[in-house]
Amino acid sequence: MSTDLHPFDRAVTLTVTGVPNQYQGQASSDYWNMVGPYGGITAASLLQAVQQHPQCLGDPLSITVNYSAAVGAGALVIDANPVRTNRSTQHWILTVQQPDADGQMQVVTTATAVTAVRRDTWSASDVPMPAVKPAADLERVPPLFKGSEWLSRYEMRFADGILPMDEDAAERDSLTRLWVRDNPPRPLDFASLAAVSDIFFPRAWLRRAKRVPAGTVSMTVYFHAGREDLAAAGDDFLLAQARGQEFRNGFFDQTAQLWSQSGQILATSHQIVYFKE
Amino acid sequence: MSTDLHPFDRAVTLTVTGVPNQYQGQASSDYWNMVGPYGGITAASLLQAVQQHPQCLGDPLSITVNYSAAVGAGALVIDANPVRTNRSTQHWILTVQQPDADGQMQVVTTATAVTAVRRDTWSASDVPMPAVKPAADLERVPPLFKGSEWLSRYEMRFADGILPMDEDAAERDSLTRLWVRDNPPRPLDFASLAAVSDIFFPRAWLRRAKRVPAGTVSMTVYFHAGREDLAAAGDDFLLAQARGQEFRNGFFDQTAQLWSQSGQILATSHQIVYFKE
Repeated sequence: MSTDLHPFDRAVTLTVTGVPNQYQGQASSDYWNMVGPYGGITAASLLQAVQQHPQCLGDPLSITVNYSAAVGAGALVIDANPVRTNRSTQHWILTVQQPDADGQMQVVTTATAVTAVRRDTWSASDVPMPAVKPAADLERVPPLFKGSEWLSRYEMRFADGILPMDEDAAERDSLTRLWVRDNPPRPLDFASLAAVSDIFFPRAWLRRAKRVPAGTVSMTVYFHAGREDLAAAGDDFLLAQARGQEFRNGFFDQTAQLWSQSGQILATSHQIVYFKE
Repeated sequence: MSTDLHPFDRAVTLTVTGVPNQYQGQASSDYWNMVGPYGGITAASLLQAVQQHPQCLGDPLSITVNYSAAVGAGALVIDANPVRTNRSTQHWILTVQQPDADGQMQVVTTATAVTAVRRDTWSASDVPMPAVKPAADLERVPPLFKGSEWLSRYEMRFADGILPMDEDAAERDSLTRLWVRDNPPRPLDFASLAAVSDIFFPRAWLRRAKRVPAGTVSMTVYFHAGREDLAAAGDDFLLAQARGQEFRNGFFDQTAQLWSQSGQILATSHQIVYFKE
């Protein structure tokens, strides 16, 4: 494995196992979170499997990733099965598996994805990019927590809704807006756009200024960008916005949008997240 | 099949086939849309399979349904596989299959779902119910299109954003708010809440007043309600709100919220939808 690769490319490197539709990767230590790899990098690896599959039709349109169990260190096996191919769309079922203590393979992640061949049509937006200070005018924030290596893989500059400094349990709005890009910068592609969709710390931590245990259960990303839009975004900052909707009995959901510098929405995303207390 | 059943209960009736994790149903003529059953009733049938599975743990937390191909008339086979069971969450992979012209079973729908045992925690909302006229003060709208039988299965009263009468291609906001309930009224449950999450006509039709061909590709529903919340909602109206986010190159996405009369969010939902032109 070349050390010249960007950490992101190292993290999503997959090799074929010889079993049809099956790939092997490694849980990334560069993107390690507290109990396993950053959820965004798991989503990126799944999308990578789809895109390098020889039967892949078109480009990513949507992916839903369900975090069934913590992904452990070491090897992981991705199955990427194109169960239905139409003229211009293709439907995928995916799993990530790892061996348990007895060596039995266990599902740790499930996912579905849709790829599509897109055509130029009438286009419009109902969610214009909010007016915020440019990235250059905002402070670069060092990694907010120790032990979460993945935080060092992103450059973050918060315009709104950074974590409250004091855990005073005071209730507030759950809106965050930040400029974000890979660290070091790397040209955007579908996999890295999927990864950055998971950039937001748990809305529950912001909503009531209390850092309770929390983890994403399911994340969906809808891709609105084509390849030319990704090329235009390059390695520049994206504006990432997230807001919680409902926090109830152990789970909350959020909606999120990602814009390029030029003000175009590249992806929208949603999560439902477990929280304690 | 008893004719005393509510049309919804008839539509989601499933029988075991004898194959593990497998159920058989019928594409519902009561909920027929132009080229197949209403997408919401397919989501409901998948959730029904999960809930009547003998190993089901807890209540629905999320479901993502990918509409891979039109579901045809006649029998359909649902596979509902609980691939990972944790202490308080369970992860499901599901498919709907039907025979093609040669009698070969083909995947027409894919899905994942998560069920969970929920506990009382701190709860809050960041999306309060909008102020609209009560349902009783709004006109009951007859089915908007002929040939879409499913429209007769819902009572709809629009507060905002009914379809423009003239197809003048004038651009406008894509927000819709309506009061909706089953017709005839029926006590709400998880399956019918999933079904009603798909109630909104395509946002593209509203956004530019042009009824182009359109169809949902993928829908996700997050359940925020517990059984007691559903019981409290009863058979009364729900307030359903949807707004498009990005319309680009053949696909748009929407976010949606469903509140009970008492102002509690019962579910949030997202879709990505194909449109032509």
